Amino acid sequence: MTRIVVALGGNAILQPGQKGYMEEQEANILKTCIGIADLIEMGYEVIITHGNGPQVGNILLQNEAAKDLVPPMPLDVCGAKSQGMIGYMLQRLLRNVLSSRGIEKQIVTLLTQVVVSSDDEAFKNPTKPIGPYYSLEEKVCHEDKGYVLKEIPRRGWRRVVPSPDPLGIVERDTICNLLETGTIVIASGGGGIPVAQENGVLKGLEAVIDKDLAGERLAREVNADILMILTDVDAVYLRYGNEDSEKLQELTVQQAKLYLAQGEFPPGSMGPKVQAAIRFVENGGKKAIITHLDQAPAALKGKAGTLLKKT
Amino acid sequence: MTRIVVALGGNAILQPGQKGYMEEQEANILKTCIGIADLIEMGYEVIITHGNGPQVGNILLQNEAAKDLVPPMPLDVCGAKSQGMIGYMLQRLLRNVLSSRGIEKQIVTLLTQVVVSSDDEAFKNPTKPIGPYYSLEEKVCHEDKGYVLKEIPRRGWRRVVPSPDPLGIVERDTICNLLETGTIVIASGGGGIPVAQENGVLKGLEAVIDKDLAGERLAREVNADILMILTDVDAVYLRYGNEDSEKLQELTVQQAKLYLAQGEFPPGSMGPKVQAAIRFVENGGKKAIITHLDQAPAALKGKAGTLLKKT
Repeated sequence: MTRIVVALGGNAILQPGQKGYMEEQEANILKTCIGIADLIEMGYEVIITHGNGPQVGNILLQNEAAKDLVPPMPLDVCGAKSQGMIGYMLQRLLRNVLSSRGIEKQIVTLLTQVVVSSDDEAFKNPTKPIGPYYSLEEKVCHEDKGYVLKEIPRRGWRRVVPSPDPLGIVERDTICNLLETGTIVIASGGGGIPVAQENGVLKGLEAVIDKDLAGERLAREVNADILMILTDVDAVYLRYGNEDSEKLQELTVQQAKLYLAQGEFPPGSMGPKVQAAIRFVENGGKKAIITHLDQAPAALKGKAGTLLKKT
Repeated sequence: MTRIVVALGGNAILQPGQKGYMEEQEANILKTCIGIADLIEMGYEVIITHGNGPQVGNILLQNEAAKDLVPPMPLDVCGAKSQGMIGYMLQRLLRNVLSSRGIEKQIVTLLTQVVVSSDDEAFKNPTKPIGPYYSLEEKVCHEDKGYVLKEIPRRGWRRVVPSPDPLGIVERDTICNLLETGTIVIASGGGGIPVAQENGVLKGLEAVIDKDLAGERLAREVNADILMILTDVDAVYLRYGNEDSEKLQELTVQQAKLYLAQGEFPPGSMGPKVQAAIRFVENGGKKAIITHLDQAPAALKGKAGTLLKKT
């Protein structure tokens, strides 16, 4: 059986412009689950991972609005909450879709801790914007708490947090055990809960791990054959958004590295996806695919998306 | 190996009077994990379940405080969030405690859906108080949303929700698979996420399942030998709190049913614990124990707590 890690982008759960009503999220997730069910019907062994940007953003807004009544939780706990919320919706709806096709499988969400190094350079230079925008007045108040804030032109100030590199999956063995029994596993949601080994104990960290890089680490650790990164464009493009944009159907590691170095793929968007794809193939993965959810089955047949291979 | 389901009361995570700071919860959970590690060192195969009252209460307060910014989530999703939050802290801290004793085991939290019947009488008669207290003015506003509110003398109005009977664990097979591989499983947190089968699909419900009854259902479904309910008193008492109170060291099903019918064990407190213990033993479980966390090892040796047996 071909083992595939499917990394869902935020838009698989919440579309831009939506506020986050349960009904909106369920409708999006149901559509996503239909796409994933297609892959399962094609005979792939599927592990699912997903982003949590809008959801953790909402949890941070709730933290803030209720701060006089309820102690706000740090980022690791907020990430764990978002894994609970999104994982539950995914596992219930995927089960419903598969049942309707006569497929009965166990589908579970594992709370996943992802190990990073507390010496990661990211802790000296936080870059990942997160949560609400603040006024100058609020900014000063948050700086007193130790937050690092960055000015976003015309929108105010926003907290930036470290985005360290994922080095390992604490629950790896369990994920592998479950895959062996035919279970569909949802893991490492939102890039996983960031933890570091310090003096022999695991400590939670105020950080956010990139979900595509965490998905790559997951794929590598479970010896997946394919890493499939699903997003809101059908493929990787050169000069994306320009009139002379060019769709890339196939890409070698060498070419991808070159384009990445030339700035073709912006950070926080296509950049980490291409970087994750490169890492996966460089570390023994057979192929990485970047495409739109709707194109996933076609991409697996080589008829859509961008395929990244070693040579 | 003797398989034991340990049901942790809310005070294992948050003590009365504490507000819910991460540091408070971690300190309590660390203490709890030391107790659980003792059981693991004694050679028991442990499955952990836990309450979520104060945590889901805080999530509901956050829902409310941020309602103009972030759509409030229904109770099933709030429950899933609390499983994420509490499960993460439990699995990380238990791992740290076991590591410090040279025991390396996989410890995982499984998001758990618990099946109830949508015909359960509880849906016609909601009784479980949940979330913040409201003024009369707020009460009217919430009734318009379809909430059922109940007056609590001197404190205001509070939402009451259905507390249906747990009938099954959706993720049962996975829990059993994991136990076979020596994994320590945290499951069915907060009584589980309530779902019902309707027209062939699983639907989330606005309800809260009693965590002791859900723990019993879990124990039964994984064929546990022992159901151990940990709370803030050392044993079950007759005339609890009175001068002539009497500690019950052993109890048969018949005796327990009699005392329960006589109103010795109040609902929402010792009542559901004794009820869960009765059910477990009546349905093939070897024994049920009710005691304080600190007394758990002693109780397993028959030197503390209340032991409930068939005859």
